[in-house]
Amino acid sequence: MTTGSTARRPRFAYAALQRFSMALLGQVGLPADQAHLMTLRMLDADLLGHRTHGLWFLSSYLQRLEAGHIRADAPLEVIASGPASFAWRANRLPGAWVMDQATQQMLAMAATQAVVTATIADCSHIGCLQSYLLPLVEANLFVTLSATNPGIASVAPFGGIDAVLTSNPIAYGIPTSAEPILIDQCTSIASNSFFTAFAERGEKLPGAWLLDAQGQPSDDPAVLQAKPAGTILPLGGTAFGYKGFGLGIAVEALSLGLSGAGRLTGPDMYGQSVFLQVINPVHFAGLPVFLAEMDHLVAACRASRVRDGAPPVRLPGERALAQRREQMQAGIELSEEVFARLRPWASKFDIELPAERAA
Amino acid sequence: MTTGSTARRPRFAYAALQRFSMALLGQVGLPADQAHLMTLRMLDADLLGHRTHGLWFLSSYLQRLEAGHIRADAPLEVIASGPASFAWRANRLPGAWVMDQATQQMLAMAATQAVVTATIADCSHIGCLQSYLLPLVEANLFVTLSATNPGIASVAPFGGIDAVLTSNPIAYGIPTSAEPILIDQCTSIASNSFFTAFAERGEKLPGAWLLDAQGQPSDDPAVLQAKPAGTILPLGGTAFGYKGFGLGIAVEALSLGLSGAGRLTGPDMYGQSVFLQVINPVHFAGLPVFLAEMDHLVAACRASRVRDGAPPVRLPGERALAQRREQMQAGIELSEEVFARLRPWASKFDIELPAERAA
Repeated sequence: MTTGSTARRPRFAYAALQRFSMALLGQVGLPADQAHLMTLRMLDADLLGHRTHGLWFLSSYLQRLEAGHIRADAPLEVIASGPASFAWRANRLPGAWVMDQATQQMLAMAATQAVVTATIADCSHIGCLQSYLLPLVEANLFVTLSATNPGIASVAPFGGIDAVLTSNPIAYGIPTSAEPILIDQCTSIASNSFFTAFAERGEKLPGAWLLDAQGQPSDDPAVLQAKPAGTILPLGGTAFGYKGFGLGIAVEALSLGLSGAGRLTGPDMYGQSVFLQVINPVHFAGLPVFLAEMDHLVAACRASRVRDGAPPVRLPGERALAQRREQMQAGIELSEEVFARLRPWASKFDIELPAERAA
Repeated sequence: MTTGSTARRPRFAYAALQRFSMALLGQVGLPADQAHLMTLRMLDADLLGHRTHGLWFLSSYLQRLEAGHIRADAPLEVIASGPASFAWRANRLPGAWVMDQATQQMLAMAATQAVVTATIADCSHIGCLQSYLLPLVEANLFVTLSATNPGIASVAPFGGIDAVLTSNPIAYGIPTSAEPILIDQCTSIASNSFFTAFAERGEKLPGAWLLDAQGQPSDDPAVLQAKPAGTILPLGGTAFGYKGFGLGIAVEALSLGLSGAGRLTGPDMYGQSVFLQVINPVHFAGLPVFLAEMDHLVAACRASRVRDGAPPVRLPGERALAQRREQMQAGIELSEEVFARLRPWASKFDIELPAERAA
């Protein structure tokens, strides 16, 4: 979810931010390969415009590494494996590093298999789902990725008022002949961090997207912090929220049920479980017809007229990929808030802050 | 989508309806095995409460069989196959019969494979997705099923006003230790037939769930029949409809792209393409932990408090399965509208209408 004010933000060179992040992560004892992958995925998130999963998150990662909630030296256990599937238990290893291992394994298996499916139990926060789609979709694979935190509950079942699920995101990567379609969305009306951002700014929401603790629709993000707390409505809201509820349950089954690390074992808030699958169109009707159909769909969507004065139709991921290109060229925008969170860490470890790039 | 008035409907014995449907389908030349499976799936839809895909649809099937839009003698072609996947082209064979063949094939493959994935190009209308989940979920498999009509367009891309997609349903079957969770929902705000039912009753909608042809939100179902026609909003509506749009695109990629029979080839409205996948939890963290996690989730949802005076939380499929049990016992409810559609066919072929069951 893209958040933040419209004020001009300073720009920073990719390489400078990378060095800065790796230096900080190194200081809390993370090996270089793990620090490298965590850094790449945070920078991906900033590039794609998912600011709450970019360097904004680095201070939380540093805290979690110091507190042992992220464990650099945990074993990566193989629970099950077959020619086209694997199930791992990651024991709080860094999410970005575990996901990279899984991505390499999937690409290797997808060379010969029609469909490759993986689950990862109990890794650390993996961050922005969209960034993991890219290497797989670039290999002309259809990708499904879902991940969720069994220790967090903020969404009530449709018709109820007690939080059971959380925002339970699901992402799909779809190859085309040109830019891929990159879908990444939560199954609640919006994500936990979306509402946190409104609450921190002291703003009301544009609509009644929450329920208060008595189950009344509310536009006040403060109800999520109240005691007793309110809940986020599932996608579809008060009228069609049974659909978001259904999708949220599917994400729980895929990520938590299949991986074997769900809400039953009473985990803390730092573990995530993941479902990842790739489908190779070559083994169905073939890649050329798949790409032709997707190209046709994209063209038909783009050709759709819009309301007078409205911007043209955008495909999922289109704006994110445009931001990525622009920021790779002109530097990555970072808000002062990101540095406010990182300055104490830089000071503690005597690491110089990255220099703003000349405009 | 459950539709219809609250007036008392007469009840009919399952066996009597089955004989009646098979007799009609036999008269238009359908072999007994195909007539049997089409009949079973229509009765499943009525049992589960999906009335627009029950015997209400039989008159359309009879018309389509007479017109050659459904072809009893078409070849079932294997486009591709592997140890855990197959892609068929069904050339307008009856959807229910093709789906039964695919289900048997999947069950056989799932005995040894972690995940089995299939696509079916260009079969006839398969009807109610939920009914196909049952034999697979009863084998303790996680099921994903999506199907759509590449020849129908009623949903605009988010931000646009020209119809490109259609209601693009997706269904998930999730085993538990008790009753399965059966999710079956479209990725638009509601289905085409939901709005047709409002239009036929001359009623306005409870909310502005459509766009008129100029892209203004509308609660008038007549905009869908107007020239130029309006469109159905994607799930999420005017604020969050990019999510329903994303899900709708994923259904198009899975059903139309992978099967190789999509919107590009300019099909008529009678063909559907299907994506079907089963995941066997045994090959991931194992069936016991999967069931335990799903049982825990169901119990947590059921335990959620509700607003004062509201009914208890229901899981997806719970009401459908309760209706099924009740109607198997007490007889299947059918509206006069169903018989109004079938009476001319019964008369044409001199077949007696089923007798109403004594109350």
